[in-house]
Amino acid sequence: MTGIEWVGLDADDTLWHSEGHFTDAQVMFCELISPWVTTDVDPAKVLDETERRNLGTFGYGVKAFTLSMLEAAVDVSGGTVPAGVITQLIERGKWMLDHPVELLDGVHETVHALAGCYRLAIITKGDLVHQERKLATSGLADVVHVIEIVSEKDPDVYRRVLARNHIAVEGFVMVGNAVRSDVLPVLAIGGRAVHIPYEQTWSHEVAEHDGTVPTLASIRELPAWLATQR
Amino acid sequence: MTGIEWVGLDADDTLWHSEGHFTDAQVMFCELISPWVTTDVDPAKVLDETERRNLGTFGYGVKAFTLSMLEAAVDVSGGTVPAGVITQLIERGKWMLDHPVELLDGVHETVHALAGCYRLAIITKGDLVHQERKLATSGLADVVHVIEIVSEKDPDVYRRVLARNHIAVEGFVMVGNAVRSDVLPVLAIGGRAVHIPYEQTWSHEVAEHDGTVPTLASIRELPAWLATQR
Repeated sequence: MTGIEWVGLDADDTLWHSEGHFTDAQVMFCELISPWVTTDVDPAKVLDETERRNLGTFGYGVKAFTLSMLEAAVDVSGGTVPAGVITQLIERGKWMLDHPVELLDGVHETVHALAGCYRLAIITKGDLVHQERKLATSGLADVVHVIEIVSEKDPDVYRRVLARNHIAVEGFVMVGNAVRSDVLPVLAIGGRAVHIPYEQTWSHEVAEHDGTVPTLASIRELPAWLATQR
Repeated sequence: MTGIEWVGLDADDTLWHSEGHFTDAQVMFCELISPWVTTDVDPAKVLDETERRNLGTFGYGVKAFTLSMLEAAVDVSGGTVPAGVITQLIERGKWMLDHPVELLDGVHETVHALAGCYRLAIITKGDLVHQERKLATSGLADVVHVIEIVSEKDPDVYRRVLARNHIAVEGFVMVGNAVRSDVLPVLAIGGRAVHIPYEQTWSHEVAEHDGTVPTLASIRELPAWLATQR
């Protein structure tokens, strides 16, 4: 087996907290909209369906989520949602976009330590301006060699990202919390992957691997695992 | 003078129509909201101010614009805007995102011809998923060597884009419709730039160059100009 030269790192829920902001906003959405819902529809379910339906048009990220909240608010209220609620939902989106990034436990010291031994590539999907802002304020940008913000994570995208950065797949491992985005497509192109589950996973991202993929409890365990791959 | 090796191309309003969709949507916004405006506020002015105020948080692109339309609708109506108008504004945003790309006159044949003589880099800002979709359906992606979607176009961003693609600034020329984004920052890093004005320019992008920048009436004139730079 070839040694690892490049470590790919997912960002949201791998390096910093993200999903919690979406689930908190979903709770707020349900509370705000419930006085205006007269049928027995489940606002959380409608919001989730609206997000999925809009993924192709809107893509990932907070702006897409905010627009889906607004669409779902009109929908579940039968058009009775007042402008004050619209404003609160837009403000919540802005709050999420402007909120300072909060690194997960162990990330700062582990990423800085890894940078001494490997080349690091952050490969993340989502909103361009938001991800750039999070990266810029993360304190990690200076020790990372490649930053790629992509609109989707499938085998073709990984192939392109590796090719354009001259990264050989044999010496590449991807590390992330999402089996669907960080593990399966990388295995599909012949790379290695490490799964570090996060406390919450968006239903759209839920997938299973076959159990042979290394699964760590914390990024703190990553250097030791990498050492076994020499 | 060194010959040109790389031609950088802006996309929106340089390769395909874009600004017209925003100004059309602005007209629609004013028509939809006017019955709900009781003060002497100018809805178009409020929308423009809202967009500019939100640029730092939302960035560029249709999703940002749509969220600003929704915020401005609540604002200018004093909170009386009905949900039906909210829905129409969201639908307009989706229409803009899903609308097939329309190349400007001469783009298809000129870009394909240039690809035989130069290396081509599309450098565009805006919404990641939307720009990727426009590129994918433009018929141009196959002849372009580098595609960079960035959140802002300033000297530092151009420096990074050129460095990561191993493009020497001495052999680089940027071609675009926006003096502020496509001309001035490239001149600032020692590159060359060609201005091809579009019929409309968003007020945020209006800037002047000193008159010494080559200005073409159409991309059709670009090959001849490039030939003078050998």
